[in-house]
Amino acid sequence: MAVETIKWINNAARIIDQTKLPNKFEYIYCRDVKTMWHAIKRLSVRGAPAIGVAAAFGVLLGIQSFKGKNKAAFLKFFQKTCDYLASSRPTAVNLFNALHVMRLVIADNPDEDVDTLKKLLLKRAMELFHEDKKTCRKMGEHGAGLIKNGMQCLTVCNAGALATVDFGTALGVFYSAKKMGKKFKVYSCETRPLLQGSRLTCWELLRQKIDTTLICDNMAASLMSRAKVDIVFAGADRIASNGDTANKIGTYMLAVLAKHHGIPFYIVAPRSTFDFNIKTGKQIPIEERDSDEVKCFAGISTAPKGIKVYNPAFDVTPASLITGIVTECGIIRPPYVKSISALKLYA
Amino acid sequence: MAVETIKWINNAARIIDQTKLPNKFEYIYCRDVKTMWHAIKRLSVRGAPAIGVAAAFGVLLGIQSFKGKNKAAFLKFFQKTCDYLASSRPTAVNLFNALHVMRLVIADNPDEDVDTLKKLLLKRAMELFHEDKKTCRKMGEHGAGLIKNGMQCLTVCNAGALATVDFGTALGVFYSAKKMGKKFKVYSCETRPLLQGSRLTCWELLRQKIDTTLICDNMAASLMSRAKVDIVFAGADRIASNGDTANKIGTYMLAVLAKHHGIPFYIVAPRSTFDFNIKTGKQIPIEERDSDEVKCFAGISTAPKGIKVYNPAFDVTPASLITGIVTECGIIRPPYVKSISALKLYA
Repeated sequence: MAVETIKWINNAARIIDQTKLPNKFEYIYCRDVKTMWHAIKRLSVRGAPAIGVAAAFGVLLGIQSFKGKNKAAFLKFFQKTCDYLASSRPTAVNLFNALHVMRLVIADNPDEDVDTLKKLLLKRAMELFHEDKKTCRKMGEHGAGLIKNGMQCLTVCNAGALATVDFGTALGVFYSAKKMGKKFKVYSCETRPLLQGSRLTCWELLRQKIDTTLICDNMAASLMSRAKVDIVFAGADRIASNGDTANKIGTYMLAVLAKHHGIPFYIVAPRSTFDFNIKTGKQIPIEERDSDEVKCFAGISTAPKGIKVYNPAFDVTPASLITGIVTECGIIRPPYVKSISALKLYA
Repeated sequence: MAVETIKWINNAARIIDQTKLPNKFEYIYCRDVKTMWHAIKRLSVRGAPAIGVAAAFGVLLGIQSFKGKNKAAFLKFFQKTCDYLASSRPTAVNLFNALHVMRLVIADNPDEDVDTLKKLLLKRAMELFHEDKKTCRKMGEHGAGLIKNGMQCLTVCNAGALATVDFGTALGVFYSAKKMGKKFKVYSCETRPLLQGSRLTCWELLRQKIDTTLICDNMAASLMSRAKVDIVFAGADRIASNGDTANKIGTYMLAVLAKHHGIPFYIVAPRSTFDFNIKTGKQIPIEERDSDEVKCFAGISTAPKGIKVYNPAFDVTPASLITGIVTECGIIRPPYVKSISALKLYA
């Protein structure tokens, strides 16, 4: 029943092709960096923690193709590979943080030769992979304490096993709570335009036999007004030093609605999703994606030709609307400038 | 360029099949009441004012098939026809108000024979048709005063020509403002699950050369936070005596978001959308529709088999979130119990 979103097998990165779910379960084997870049770009692999690991594996794929022992040439090739992967998607900081970690391997080992550096990079990428598994389980345990028997939870997009190596951030909280024997319900926002909620989250939660109901995004307010939501859990793509959080478009909407209805709103994200280099959410670049994602479905037009489209993939929830952020180090709460600064030092 | 949503031609009701837009423009000729009932049920004709006229025409289609002169049998047949049409959809009160108007023709003319009653019913239905045209233009003029040059407006679902005989409620405001030479932009929420915003509103506004941008429903909050919305206009399906307003699912969401961002939120609806018999929105029956509307698109599954779905077609916006209601008698404002009570007496 386990979902293995991304795995390093025989010098290739095997990923689940998430564009095909829930109708088809297929793997893609990335054997070169270009295939990985496109897999990230077209969302075959998505979810901030998962694309962090994907980027690290992408580096491995890149350097595999470097033949020879010339170190200067290798370093140049390595940097080019990292820069290329960094150009795939702009918002999730995990991608940049993972590339930074890989770059540190080079910086920290100035005297090693090409073959040794390759081995060290492989070792570090595998550490990132294993850390993600551990981190998610720790977040799950911390977050599960927030779920009481009988609660009705709401989530958006997919912050599950499919967004990480194999367990999830927001959905990991549900998996841990279920393991503890708690009874609760989940509502999943379908998450337009690409329906990660209906296609991926519902698929995951059904497999784990969690009581799940699908809604359209515009039904969340109605649901809250009918007292059918006790708590909201969302993932994150980048969290600024003040707690402002970029996540899938629609997350900010839920945070405003939760505040209006007096419902606690939690973000679940590992330290690798924090961008300690930026002060506020205003500094987070927001990816805008192709208008066809909104105007077409399965090749059929759902809007007239020539219509303009605004299609931001993310929005930013101000820290003031966030009740708490569940991390692997525990749940941090306002004032976030202080608690996030403490998190930065935690290691 | 005029859109003739519904028209009585040669003893048939001709309607635009809105399920086919924007890819195909096709008429359906309803020649019997059953065809009209299904056209309403499956949303070939939709929008509260339009289904009011559709119901009146449905009565005409029903009584056309009554042969003979027996008045008692005719009255029984007439009532059965009205009850049948009333069972098509539960929320929009215009349908019930139109049937009530048709029933009054019978009640007010106790001495007339079957042929005369048939003629009087035809006359009354045509009056409803023409009243809708006039009413929409009056609402448009009243509402257009709210639009200033350079404004960015947001709307949801389709409250346009396609929701009325030929002009619209919320979109009628845009048409009137354009006629007055005002410059403004419109954002249209796509309106899941059936995409009346992208399919119908964008189609209408593009035909009228109004600067329009399509967004997914979950992008409205982000748009507001970026100061891209100055005013919201929505239609209505039923307004209670205290101003609580049922409209397409997602309207309540927009009202909460507008309040959070300090943006005025207007409803545009004729007197026929008011239900003076109910005190609050809690008494409005909310239609829940088939789960396949959310789980499938064009026959393709977008969610895993077996997932539960919550699919209310409407939500209720409390009066406290509504800045004003644009009617054919002018813009009414809080306190609504008083202003709506005055509207009731207005004739």
